[in-house]
Amino acid sequence: MKQMFAALALTLAGAAVSGAGELPVAPNGIACLTDYRAWEAVAPSWRDDRGQIRVILGNPTAMKALRSGTRPFPDGSTFAKLAWSAKKHPKFPLATVPDAFAQVEFMVKDGEKFKPTGGWGFARFVGQELKPYGKDASFVQECFGCHTPVKDNDFVFTHLATIP
Amino acid sequence: MKQMFAALALTLAGAAVSGAGELPVAPNGIACLTDYRAWEAVAPSWRDDRGQIRVILGNPTAMKALRSGTRPFPDGSTFAKLAWSAKKHPKFPLATVPDAFAQVEFMVKDGEKFKPTGGWGFARFVGQELKPYGKDASFVQECFGCHTPVKDNDFVFTHLATIP
Ligand code: HEC
Ligand code: HEC
Repeated sequence: MKQMFAALALTLAGAAVSGAGELPVAPNGIACLTDYRAWEAVAPSWRDDRGQIRVILGNPTAMKALRSGTRPFPDGSTFAKLAWSAKKHPKFPLATVPDAFAQVEFMVKDGEKFKPTGGWGFARFVGQELKPYGKDASFVQECFGCHTPVKDNDFVFTHLATIP
Repeated sequence: MKQMFAALALTLAGAAVSGAGELPVAPNGIACLTDYRAWEAVAPSWRDDRGQIRVILGNPTAMKALRSGTRPFPDGSTFAKLAWSAKKHPKFPLATVPDAFAQVEFMVKDGEKFKPTGGWGFARFVGQELKPYGKDASFVQECFGCHTPVKDNDFVFTHLATIP
């Protein structure tokens, strides 16, 4: 069943991006992933100043490391952060819910390949067209810079939102 | 891998609830589910007035109905709404993130069994102890009453947060 949805997500993402089904590629060579929607939720988040509501998802390798407390995250760990602009629910204005898709961001762990940025490959794809963010590969300095305050958590801000 | 995490969630939930591993049961007979954490995210949400941040998850049947626009939701569709109290991220205060677990709520579709409440079985489990909410089975009137404004969407507030 999961596989079916992953396949569906792939089809949809491919369809939106180009007739040929090519995926957008960030200036550092990281292609937009397609299977992340089926990953488990690490936590929701909310940015007051931007009016954006987000959910951070983790692939199975990342979830396992979160649950066991393994740091640094092992190679293959991948996080996706999905962001939407926010609106008040039309039938219940006290609730703030997603409106339009804003962007998706990825952090892909490969200690060797991405050594200069803490072992993480960063990529951001913006808007309905999933436009790759950044003029050239140096865009990752902005990402890495902002994630440096959480170096003690292997550059990852999000903690697993716990359930009993 | 998914199964492994589901099994882990089961163990953890069971352990937190009682030595015998029994699961808490709502006054209407619905037992707290254990496998919901691995479900796909439908959408995050944010309640300003309560300072609570949430994520709504859907089981495969619910996700399929959301994607195809099928209403009413078919029997077996199940939603889980997880809520945490919110805090500012200690390393990045502009971001609001989950703090302590607050509650989990379920809506389980069974058109026959739950006919008086739109075909949905409601259940809420509160706090780290997953204490069943409600003095007796009539607690569902509060749930159903509040969900009635979205009768045209088969009593479901949350729409699928779309990605390209
Ligand atoms: C202005 C600071 C800032 C910048 C710049 C920034 N991030 Fe983040 N990032 C955050 C914060 C804070 C979070 C925690 C979640 C939230 O607030 O929504 C986060 C979370 C993430 C996550 C989820 C994993 C985690 O660390 O929690 C990914 C993936 C991510 N960012 C990718 C990127 C990428 C890719 C870029 C650059 C193109 C980038 N970030 C730039 C602040 C930043
Ligand atoms: C005061 C109004 C109100 C009451 C009472 C209420 N709900 Fe909801 N419920 C909402 C809103 C609004 C949402 C949309 C998500 C959000 O705001 O976080 C929602 C969402 C949900 C969801 C996710 C599926 C959906 O409809 O979006 C579940 C499951 C749920 N509620 C269960 C319950 C249960 C169980 C009870 C009673 C024990 C209950 N609710 C009582 C307002 C209410």
